[in-house]
Amino acid sequence: MFIIGELINGMFSNIALAIKEHDKKTVQTCALEQISGGADALDLSCGTASKNPLFDMPWLVETVQEITDKPLCLDSSKPAVIEEGLKVAKNKTIINSTTADPEKLKILVPLAKKYNSKLIGITISSKGIPQNKDQRLELAADILEYINQEDFPVQDLYLDPVVMPVNVAQNQLKDILETIRELKIISEPSPNTIIGLSNISQGTKLRGLINRTFLTMAVASGLDSAILNPKDKELIEALITTELILNKNIYCDSYIEAYRKK
Amino acid sequence: MFIIGELINGMFSNIALAIKEHDKKTVQTCALEQISGGADALDLSCGTASKNPLFDMPWLVETVQEITDKPLCLDSSKPAVIEEGLKVAKNKTIINSTTADPEKLKILVPLAKKYNSKLIGITISSKGIPQNKDQRLELAADILEYINQEDFPVQDLYLDPVVMPVNVAQNQLKDILETIRELKIISEPSPNTIIGLSNISQGTKLRGLINRTFLTMAVASGLDSAILNPKDKELIEALITTELILNKNIYCDSYIEAYRKK
Repeated sequence: MFIIGELINGMFSNIALAIKEHDKKTVQTCALEQISGGADALDLSCGTASKNPLFDMPWLVETVQEITDKPLCLDSSKPAVIEEGLKVAKNKTIINSTTADPEKLKILVPLAKKYNSKLIGITISSKGIPQNKDQRLELAADILEYINQEDFPVQDLYLDPVVMPVNVAQNQLKDILETIRELKIISEPSPNTIIGLSNISQGTKLRGLINRTFLTMAVASGLDSAILNPKDKELIEALITTELILNKNIYCDSYIEAYRKK
Repeated sequence: MFIIGELINGMFSNIALAIKEHDKKTVQTCALEQISGGADALDLSCGTASKNPLFDMPWLVETVQEITDKPLCLDSSKPAVIEEGLKVAKNKTIINSTTADPEKLKILVPLAKKYNSKLIGITISSKGIPQNKDQRLELAADILEYINQEDFPVQDLYLDPVVMPVNVAQNQLKDILETIRELKIISEPSPNTIIGLSNISQGTKLRGLINRTFLTMAVASGLDSAILNPKDKELIEALITTELILNKNIYCDSYIEAYRKK
């Protein structure tokens, strides 16, 4: 599992303040803590608190690059903000994200190609969030068709089936798990799959328990990657154990420590 | 999920002693604690410590029946021991278990019919434990064919794909999860599926974590029933949350308490 840390995001008050005051230390500490928790990459989002994301995004990229070579995931609804980050990024990046809307694909796929970046494609259209598995798979097929036309490599695409909160769309979650399973066989080679995990527990009381239970189920369904909180120790232990059961790491009595050392 | 409590078993020293001394209190307390933890039924096994299981099994049945009407799961490798329990059981029972060996089926299917009992069928043959999904499904088909011939109702059959310890047969676990998924479509109506959960973590250090992670994965694969420790609070909370995500219980902020009250 490719873990993308979610914590450098202006929606969190400590990061919003750090962006406002250009306080590198807070952002770099947050980056290092996530890496120590198990993050393979770090999501960077200015959030709505940022007055000048065109300036703040490259500042975030440069601040984090000072202390790690991990891939950065540039997270904004504005392609211009993402491009300012891409311009200063030294290593392979991930663009977060395009939807299946042709107007979005037309801008973001060329951007990903120009900067040799990976790309997250969310199964949303201009009509909104799909309500069932077939609609999700149809939008995934639209994204795949577009990137194939544009010669963008499928191995650099991450398809996101849009995880809904359990207290809002409980009846869709089983369908989302089935979507993850079917996305792996929708094309050859398989596209990668990704979810923004924390959304499932938005507004609930037992967030940690719901997050780790859903992650276990999603990984069992073939999930390749997730944007999540790597500082949640129980979440990461559940993930390591799920992968152990799927025979992705060899069992030893101290398999959690062994995985962390890797 | 139909939860069968595993704790009234002579392999545990407190129960071995209680059986030896005919100490009803210990057995009845263990029964009540498991029911309060979430058990829908209780497994009863004299274990190897019992010198006289033909006498001890009916004693266990009568002892537990004094304090609950929950179904009892009569667990012995000896059909004669099971029958002594069946003779005194007041409510619907579950026989634990037959294998796919025709010599076993020939005895246990008529016994289940005679006493109107449910029956667990383990996908083991006289050659031993199967090594892959196809062998498991083949043995499951053998059991199904036999019970159909004998007019034993498929809804009273629980097929057990034999969970192996992660430190012994790690590479079989993914196959076992796929077996659970496929057992649900092997016949119409679907047979029930069951596992003896604790076996997965035999001899490991992090038993609770491994048990609850595997249970989540198995339930996501369609598992109907498990023999497990209902006093493991984290295990039951993981199970309730898994079922919540599968939309089997309606979300509310206190969904764990709501489930327990049910």
